[in-house]
Amino acid sequence: MEPAQPAQKPPAYKLSIRVDLANGGRIGPGKVLLLEAIARTGSISAAGRALRMSYRRAWELVEDLNRTLGTPVVNTSAGGPGGGGATLTAAGSAVIDQYRALELAAYQTAETHVNAILEACQKGEKRS
Amino acid sequence: MEPAQPAQKPPAYKLSIRVDLANGGRIGPGKVLLLEAIARTGSISAAGRALRMSYRRAWELVEDLNRTLGTPVVNTSAGGPGGGGATLTAAGSAVIDQYRALELAAYQTAETHVNAILEACQKGEKRS
Repeated sequence: MEPAQPAQKPPAYKLSIRVDLANGGRIGPGKVLLLEAIARTGSISAAGRALRMSYRRAWELVEDLNRTLGTPVVNTSAGGPGGGGATLTAAGSAVIDQYRALELAAYQTAETHVNAILEACQKGEKRS
Repeated sequence: MEPAQPAQKPPAYKLSIRVDLANGGRIGPGKVLLLEAIARTGSISAAGRALRMSYRRAWELVEDLNRTLGTPVVNTSAGGPGGGGATLTAAGSAVIDQYRALELAAYQTAETHVNAILEACQKGEKRS
């Protein structure tokens, strides 16, 4: 017996998209996940922990975005005993929203092409 | 004075797309460039040289595609003193054609989103 399937079956593929801007900025899945985790946790260190990333690495990725995009993506405030907080700037939110929209659009157009690759491979398999 | 612009200005960004198939196959810019070079040069070793890639690395990438896609992407023939030749199979050609079509479609939908990121960053820059 087949296990119960969710109403919408998951795609048979995953896309990883990196956007390299002319100004040197590189926006990819890792940085977008980090920004999302900062928005969720309100802290760069908590976001790093959530993604099993060192604090240093999380900071480097944020600093890299700030520098290459020419504007901060994260606002930080020095905090008390619990450490400072971090919130996304409008630019940081735009990076997430637009990257996810771009990714969704890419998935919508990719399906036909990925299926054509899989079909060509199935034909090849039968022939060989 | 502005320098003369080509009729169609190059995009201010570059997309790098990797497709991870459910069967473990990974198709990205490097493997597609390699398949294109094999089609052009008729040889895996010449294709590797053209891409400044070791012969071993070029073979590994081809073998990885053959294995994960379940069908050969390249037909090889043992050759004489000049070495054997290599041609793409229908599956190998489909990988190139469909990946490039997917990439083109992604570029067409990405522009609006990338511009929105750049605009949000310009606004942030003025404010800070």
